[in-house]
Amino acid sequence: MDKTPPYYAVIFTSKHSKNTDGYDEMAEQMETLAKQQKGFLGMTSIREHIGITVSYWESLDAIANWKQQNNHLTAQEKGRNTWYDWYDVKICKVERAYSFNTPKTIA
Amino acid sequence: MDKTPPYYAVIFTSKHSKNTDGYDEMAEQMETLAKQQKGFLGMTSIREHIGITVSYWESLDAIANWKQQNNHLTAQEKGRNTWYDWYDVKICKVERAYSFNTPKTIA
Repeated sequence: MDKTPPYYAVIFTSKHSKNTDGYDEMAEQMETLAKQQKGFLGMTSIREHIGITVSYWESLDAIANWKQQNNHLTAQEKGRNTWYDWYDVKICKVERAYSFNTPKTIA
Repeated sequence: MDKTPPYYAVIFTSKHSKNTDGYDEMAEQMETLAKQQKGFLGMTSIREHIGITVSYWESLDAIANWKQQNNHLTAQEKGRNTWYDWYDVKICKVERAYSFNTPKTIA
């Protein structure tokens, strides 16, 4: 990513439940859709004992629009009902960014 | 964590090099020291093909103080010289936070 602050980040931290049937397909679909949203800048996602996904956006409006996107609303509901024991969302303004040798493809 | 925004987050994304001798011990020591810093609020860390560590702080001053802490300066230098192919740091103001069933011990 090659963007000068300020912009916005959503830090999504989560713990899967024991039932993750259908999760991978939905996660893939959500990533595809997020990338098509206006104002999407980039995304980094890792899962181990818990998961952290950080997505980057041009504005708070872009984040709000993605939260209300129809397929995403369905995914959120399924997440609460089935896939997640818990999750945590933080909406952040990125004020400063610096890096060491980071490839531009990385958020 | 049980803190109402605003507060601050540091998103540290990184890729290990092939030489991580001594990294685990240093990471453990840094976590212990960070927790002792004034203004430290919490930390979540995962590593898979890349690593994401998010630490939370009361203020930008608290973040600046941690960046300049002596043992941490040594660790940063060793990180650039040896342990990391690349890393990326974003300093963020957490403006809004919400969660679903998240335990208070989680950032």
